[in-house]
Amino acid sequence: MATVKLLTNEEAEKIPAVKEVFDEIRDLRKTDFINNFWRALGAADPALLKRTWEGLKAVMMTPGNIDPMTREMIYIAVSAANACSYCLHSHTAQARAKGMTEDTYAELLSIVGLAAQTNHMVTAMQVPVDPEFLA
Amino acid sequence: MATVKLLTNEEAEKIPAVKEVFDEIRDLRKTDFINNFWRALGAADPALLKRTWEGLKAVMMTPGNIDPMTREMIYIAVSAANACSYCLHSHTAQARAKGMTEDTYAELLSIVGLAAQTNHMVTAMQVPVDPEFLA
Amino acid sequence: MATVKLLTNEEAEKIPAVKEVFDEIRDLRKTDFINNFWRALGAADPALLKRTWEGLKAVMMTPGNIDPMTREMIYIAVSAANACSYCLHSHTAQARAKGMTEDTYAELLSIVGLAAQTNHMVTAMQVPVDPEFLA
Amino acid sequence: MATVKLLTNEEAEKIPAVKEVFDEIRDLRKTDFINNFWRALGAADPALLKRTWEGLKAVMMTPGNIDPMTREMIYIAVSAANACSYCLHSHTAQARAKGMTEDTYAELLSIVGLAAQTNHMVTAMQVPVDPEFLA
Amino acid sequence: MATVKLLTNEEAEKIPAVKEVFDEIRDLRKTDFINNFWRALGAADPALLKRTWEGLKAVMMTPGNIDPMTREMIYIAVSAANACSYCLHSHTAQARAKGMTEDTYAELLSIVGLAAQTNHMVTAMQVPVDPEFLA
Amino acid sequence: MATVKLLTNEEAEKIPAVKEVFDEIRDLRKTDFINNFWRALGAADPALLKRTWEGLKAVMMTPGNIDPMTREMIYIAVSAANACSYCLHSHTAQARAKGMTEDTYAELLSIVGLAAQTNHMVTAMQVPVDPEFLA
Repeated sequence: MATVKLLTNEEAEKIPAVKEVFDEIRDLRKTDFINNFWRALGAADPALLKRTWEGLKAVMMTPGNIDPMTREMIYIAVSAANACSYCLHSHTAQARAKGMTEDTYAELLSIVGLAAQTNHMVTAMQVPVDPEFLA
Repeated sequence: MATVKLLTNEEAEKIPAVKEVFDEIRDLRKTDFINNFWRALGAADPALLKRTWEGLKAVMMTPGNIDPMTREMIYIAVSAANACSYCLHSHTAQARAKGMTEDTYAELLSIVGLAAQTNHMVTAMQVPVDPEFLA
Repeated sequence: MATVKLLTNEEAEKIPAVKEVFDEIRDLRKTDFINNFWRALGAADPALLKRTWEGLKAVMMTPGNIDPMTREMIYIAVSAANACSYCLHSHTAQARAKGMTEDTYAELLSIVGLAAQTNHMVTAMQVPVDPEFLA
Repeated sequence: MATVKLLTNEEAEKIPAVKEVFDEIRDLRKTDFINNFWRALGAADPALLKRTWEGLKAVMMTPGNIDPMTREMIYIAVSAANACSYCLHSHTAQARAKGMTEDTYAELLSIVGLAAQTNHMVTAMQVPVDPEFLA
Repeated sequence: MATVKLLTNEEAEKIPAVKEVFDEIRDLRKTDFINNFWRALGAADPALLKRTWEGLKAVMMTPGNIDPMTREMIYIAVSAANACSYCLHSHTAQARAKGMTEDTYAELLSIVGLAAQTNHMVTAMQVPVDPEFLA
Repeated sequence: MATVKLLTNEEAEKIPAVKEVFDEIRDLRKTDFINNFWRALGAADPALLKRTWEGLKAVMMTPGNIDPMTREMIYIAVSAANACSYCLHSHTAQARAKGMTEDTYAELLSIVGLAAQTNHMVTAMQVPVDPEFLA
């Protein structure tokens, strides 16, 4: 069930701007597999596909202080709070591919759960920010 | 502005179940500072205060695979998605106290932003989960 | 800070459709106090003010199976999840006015926190629904 | 999977208050099709069905400044943020029926994504409101 | 579809820390049925399973001012706002098992809907809190 | 209150990558005013500032099917659902600057409220998607 169509490989081949992004995804990820998110974006708008892929490369694939597995775990945390089923499936798979063990996943779940619990209680009580926390 | 009162130090001293938790917070954090969240929970219900503190100790202060700074960053990610102003102030302060540099914080912001962007677009399109992502 | 203006009593008196609603609010609540939500809606659009007030009367003030205090507590639960600061202040005040004690409020907070915690963990894991739960 | 039953046409015919609403939906939309949302509400409570339908008529079907297609697109934007799968399917179908092209849909997706991205980053940083933005 | 495996009864029997919790769930609920949430948590981490179950017992099964059916209804309200499909199925089933009639469920739905509607409108307008509502 | 510092004009002048973006914002918007979001992003990371500004230009300032005022209204709708106070202030101001009248704003509020109401009720009931709505 989707509100959009998903580009097949054959359709993607025929749209140069899509083919360029798909080729790069395959090249950088060293796999022929193109997941449905890119097929949906490509069907919607090749320019949106390209911008989104460029954003993902800059944020998730550029070397930095946060290691690739941890970036995926942060992604999972946000996706849980936003209730994005697709994102949870895809980024949990990617976090595991980047080394997340089941023990580490359980720790992640416990942090996400605790944060949500205290988020909701603090918000309910409208606790005022301590001056000590101001930047 | 709050929907609850906040226990003063004097009031906390007079409620043994609260004093016990506050003493442990001060002891483990090596500071006299008790932030407003605990003062609000203590005013609401000492048993709820104790359960919440025990949960936080188990999740955030027990040695594990995820380092303390990263735990705070995951907390921030969830709190941003849940729009918890207090939590963002308190856990950003704690992440910095545990070593988060401004560079690392900027990376965190960019991941949180990207995840939110793709969460909303994927959800809008109701993209079906690829069979490859199923556990 | 608001993105709208708030009607003063004098301004409200001059707009018949607003005056009619304000008079009924004062009459049914037995107080002269009109809170800012109604002043904002009245400034935005008297017809929206009236529809919203009619909806609130039907849902919150019509006799039914759920008592008035519990209705306010359910309202608080939703408002915490939606991070509505104004709503939490106004409906916590109303829940207390309708009999919510501090003990009951602490129970409410603990349920809201637990639900949020398990909501986020279940969503993160994408736990499939047990057939036993289907209607 | 649902937590409620859905009224069949035969059941709906036998409940006068439901039949009245269903007849009006069919009449105004010029189709025999009654979607599941109304069947669920009718099963839950005919009065809630009627109030909800009256609200929808007032907001979505009364002539105003915002054209019908744009109203559906705003609906989609909110539904994406609230992760309402059913709503996204039904209102995307309706937006298309009211003229939303695939190009326009791609623009909508890009705005929803950008708003979510900046919402989360701004909230994470707790950026103070500029005085220039106050009403 | 899940991002985790679910413990079978045979697997659960072989992990003492899981078996202990499952036995207690069966004992307190007077049924052999263990729903998938516990099977998922047990697979992820027996310690997280135990902490979560202890939390649930303390909040949902300890006598207090809020009756068991109402606790489930508050749970439903939060789960609707957080869009937790599994939680809605499981807690709606439990609310019904604890006496929630269809009339009462319809009232709950109407309160959840009204709260969401006003939450979003108030937040959009950034209505300032009336001094009268401050604790 | 913020978790970050905000660049002053003098500080911005000294960071070439920030100055370049600020100059372009001033040039395209034909005003000297730089709002706090950009000052915060610039302080966090000039590269993140630039990427975010490029994204905003592409989505909000490139000619397309959706007019500039409507883009701002869609932004407001998402920001209300995500409870982003800053975003609501800034984009409501921009929507007005682009022609949103008070009447149109009231229509927007009513659509946002209705969508949220039905989102929450539909999600609570877990209404199954009608086959007619599938793309």
